[in-house]
Amino acid sequence: MDTPPTEAVDAVLAADTYGKSRVRLIKLARRPDRHDLKEITLQILFRGDFASCYETGDNSKILPTDTIKNTVYAMARRHDIDAIEEFAERLIDHFLKNNPQVSEVRVEMTEHLWSRVAPAAFTRESQKRTAMVTGTRDGVTIQAGIDDLTILKSAGSAFEGYIKDPYTTLKEASDRIFATAVRAMWRYSAGAVDFNARWTAIRQEILETFAAHDSRSVQHTLHAIGQEVLKRFQDVAEIELTMPNKHALLVDLAPFGLDNPNEVFLPIDEPSGYIQGKLVRRGAVSGR
Amino acid sequence: MDTPPTEAVDAVLAADTYGKSRVRLIKLARRPDRHDLKEITLQILFRGDFASCYETGDNSKILPTDTIKNTVYAMARRHDIDAIEEFAERLIDHFLKNNPQVSEVRVEMTEHLWSRVAPAAFTRESQKRTAMVTGTRDGVTIQAGIDDLTILKSAGSAFEGYIKDPYTTLKEASDRIFATAVRAMWRYSAGAVDFNARWTAIRQEILETFAAHDSRSVQHTLHAIGQEVLKRFQDVAEIELTMPNKHALLVDLAPFGLDNPNEVFLPIDEPSGYIQGKLVRRGAVSGR
Amino acid sequence: MDTPPTEAVDAVLAADTYGKSRVRLIKLARRPDRHDLKEITLQILFRGDFASCYETGDNSKILPTDTIKNTVYAMARRHDIDAIEEFAERLIDHFLKNNPQVSEVRVEMTEHLWSRVAPAAFTRESQKRTAMVTGTRDGVTIQAGIDDLTILKSAGSAFEGYIKDPYTTLKEASDRIFATAVRAMWRYSAGAVDFNARWTAIRQEILETFAAHDSRSVQHTLHAIGQEVLKRFQDVAEIELTMPNKHALLVDLAPFGLDNPNEVFLPIDEPSGYIQGKLVRRGAVSGR
Amino acid sequence: MDTPPTEAVDAVLAADTYGKSRVRLIKLARRPDRHDLKEITLQILFRGDFASCYETGDNSKILPTDTIKNTVYAMARRHDIDAIEEFAERLIDHFLKNNPQVSEVRVEMTEHLWSRVAPAAFTRESQKRTAMVTGTRDGVTIQAGIDDLTILKSAGSAFEGYIKDPYTTLKEASDRIFATAVRAMWRYSAGAVDFNARWTAIRQEILETFAAHDSRSVQHTLHAIGQEVLKRFQDVAEIELTMPNKHALLVDLAPFGLDNPNEVFLPIDEPSGYIQGKLVRRGAVSGR
Repeated sequence: MDTPPTEAVDAVLAADTYGKSRVRLIKLARRPDRHDLKEITLQILFRGDFASCYETGDNSKILPTDTIKNTVYAMARRHDIDAIEEFAERLIDHFLKNNPQVSEVRVEMTEHLWSRVAPAAFTRESQKRTAMVTGTRDGVTIQAGIDDLTILKSAGSAFEGYIKDPYTTLKEASDRIFATAVRAMWRYSAGAVDFNARWTAIRQEILETFAAHDSRSVQHTLHAIGQEVLKRFQDVAEIELTMPNKHALLVDLAPFGLDNPNEVFLPIDEPSGYIQGKLVRRGAVSGR
Repeated sequence: MDTPPTEAVDAVLAADTYGKSRVRLIKLARRPDRHDLKEITLQILFRGDFASCYETGDNSKILPTDTIKNTVYAMARRHDIDAIEEFAERLIDHFLKNNPQVSEVRVEMTEHLWSRVAPAAFTRESQKRTAMVTGTRDGVTIQAGIDDLTILKSAGSAFEGYIKDPYTTLKEASDRIFATAVRAMWRYSAGAVDFNARWTAIRQEILETFAAHDSRSVQHTLHAIGQEVLKRFQDVAEIELTMPNKHALLVDLAPFGLDNPNEVFLPIDEPSGYIQGKLVRRGAVSGR
Repeated sequence: MDTPPTEAVDAVLAADTYGKSRVRLIKLARRPDRHDLKEITLQILFRGDFASCYETGDNSKILPTDTIKNTVYAMARRHDIDAIEEFAERLIDHFLKNNPQVSEVRVEMTEHLWSRVAPAAFTRESQKRTAMVTGTRDGVTIQAGIDDLTILKSAGSAFEGYIKDPYTTLKEASDRIFATAVRAMWRYSAGAVDFNARWTAIRQEILETFAAHDSRSVQHTLHAIGQEVLKRFQDVAEIELTMPNKHALLVDLAPFGLDNPNEVFLPIDEPSGYIQGKLVRRGAVSGR
Repeated sequence: MDTPPTEAVDAVLAADTYGKSRVRLIKLARRPDRHDLKEITLQILFRGDFASCYETGDNSKILPTDTIKNTVYAMARRHDIDAIEEFAERLIDHFLKNNPQVSEVRVEMTEHLWSRVAPAAFTRESQKRTAMVTGTRDGVTIQAGIDDLTILKSAGSAFEGYIKDPYTTLKEASDRIFATAVRAMWRYSAGAVDFNARWTAIRQEILETFAAHDSRSVQHTLHAIGQEVLKRFQDVAEIELTMPNKHALLVDLAPFGLDNPNEVFLPIDEPSGYIQGKLVRRGAVSGR
């Protein structure tokens, strides 16, 4: 049943992308006095002139996803990997140069961070550094980020003054637990950034603003974090923050003759609030 | 550290959304001769006039996500849930009517399907029915879909004639295992669709086309599936398909003096190919 | 720092085991008119005379786990896989024959079941068939089971008459939702069983007993299921059942002026009840 | 179909347990100058005189799992939680005192560790502290542990001299990556231990021994770790270690004209080696 594409139905291939997901890599740099370790999971996606492949099964323009994967390993051998953003740029450059049918390459990286225990021994951390670099023959957009940065504050957080309607049961809280798993992604405006140092500084700024902010809502704190990052780091053009409200419910102990002065909580995964916002520096050239 | 928003930095809140994720619901319809069971997980997201909330911590326009959740349960009690698409429309209608500050409501639903064992007993299936309904004061866009439909064919699948470059090691295959977990989402053009019957028919069409297609690549089969759905169902305006290539590697048994005539495979989760395409009926009014 | 084991501390290696986990296999049987598909994940564990390996780093008795994995693929090529229990026996036989230092081999298998769509196309089911076969030079113990069989009944389930103490808030229920994900594992007393037919029949018996039982508690229904299986299948010597109580909470709609006559529920994953029981046929030779 | 238990089949309830799983708790201690945060997930299981409950549906001896959960929250309010082991003992004491039908209570705890960012702000770590405390009217057994401690060493690890058979393809390695996610559980012989300080010290000992050991195999290093812990901490009677070999495969770059001097690796989750061993101090009173 090889459906003849031209007469079957008057349909258009409006969008398409393909590539390789979940490519995993460990790169070890063997220094005289120590080893440096990078662990990265990548996704590489192509857009371009691929309609004939979808429509007629003509594979002559397809670079197999297996080859995409092999290229990652070869490039990892050929070059040092200092910042993941630079490794992504290198891959994009390679694929665009060698594949005229490809108009855009997007590389998404998740770096699994390791802490040093000894010159050649490490423990894995929970937080993840991310990057999304998108390149065409007109240039490159570099975004960097953090994922799964789970943080909690038990002071300086309130939620009051919201709409009450017939379905309201939530009680106003002048003092509540505020827990979230921050996902942040920011875009650099400048090409030449010290990506490693900048990432560490932005992470620190996020943590400190979260801890210090006098929060009236998740939205309020999300905005404060975005603003602080844009204020301090002029090479950041925009930042998008996703901060799910991971609720910690105050347990009702009254049935047992006990009060609960904000001490005993039930943390839940479901449901969770979903709060997202994007702040853009006025005048910044808009990215993708 | 309540950052004064106006003078801190010249930044704009360019986009924002909030709502409730992972709201879980079981609705039991108690018929005289049997029970009918619906299990749904919902996400409801608002867009609208919320800048003051982010910028100054003014909560007076915020309908708490807790209230959003409560509303779902109350509406589930008030109304039968036949098709999830209709339940989503009902929720959107409620929120838009009662919240002038909200300009758009998006409801995403995942229905966990159950098979009947007895009049009041069920076993849970693995596949998931999905819907994404988006409403503004100008109208509603209804998308429906399937998630995690894992399928495999062991005949009628080849991959040959692709680009070879210095990083190619993949061997051409005239006969390979083709396994994928289909994620499909289509948009209805017409308002009045029998959503339940249509969903079942489209799922069947996807399965049959996948099984029967003489596949030259994942892209090729993805396109054939999209085309068949658009050809058979005139009320579908567009369909987006994501079909990761879940590789099953032929195991090399030569070191043990054995051949392997496409019989013994190693299925892997990582890496996986990523193939996505969207087909739009020519002349269809484009949705979001 | 190669710790000298003999003088360091007066400690004994009291127990040890090693092997390979998460070995994945697809075996395709190419019949003239159709393909048959088996997908299995295996774990193979050895016990035996391995103390010198732990204590001094002497590897001369270690069959590498990589070789264990290779052997699985070679045996899958050499032999048909009809029932996973038989394939496990074959593997045990091989390892015991060729490795005098191994005194016990345990093979745990999870079969991921697929439903046929076409002669060479399949969809993957959610339920899993399991087996745990343990062999020594004295004989083999064969256990078979089911995992992740998620079932729910909305009639015929009560929970009343339990202990009340100062921490009780649960209300007695004469009619509640009873949902669980059954994990069952039974041991065969006889060597010659039609494993495939027996598995299907036992699964059916579990489903039917669950659906029909007038349940006073999870424990009560667990026991009834075990008894029915032992009653009907004389070649089953014992059965262990784990039935977590996956709670579905009745949502309190009174704040919204609504009743809730057992129609709207909130299913939760956390916390869950944990109920486990093992029934043994009187006089059965006890297995491990 | 209320199966009459006595005449149905000659079966015995040979073992049974029940309780509550995945009880989640946050306890906040509000000090004058800072907050202290504990996040714990618990499982509490009972054994005892429950046969009538299984066999006849008589619930008169059942303390509902919901009440077990409530008790946890009430006890968390009544008492400080310094070490999870002590909180477990307190719970066991409560349940045994008030429930004559219960002969054994087992409490398993997982503490999700948080690092302090500010006096009332925290980030969540990836590693987990665990405890399993089992009590009867004759006494209490206290085990403590670590879970998901993912560690990797890129020097000082070899694997050579193992058995070669017809299924061997693994090459001997004098220098390989050794990665594992340690699960350790040790039993204290003494009642009065400073559980928090001891846990930190044992974790440190595990890390340091792993980093420093001249490893000939995973088994070899597992044994060295166990020995070092028993040597240094006299109040530890035994320790069980599970160290899956999380393989990092050396990528073959020869097809691309490149060497790979142990620099570029593919880490895989499947398959993994499974290595487990238990060391017992000679003369220690054996625990459960």
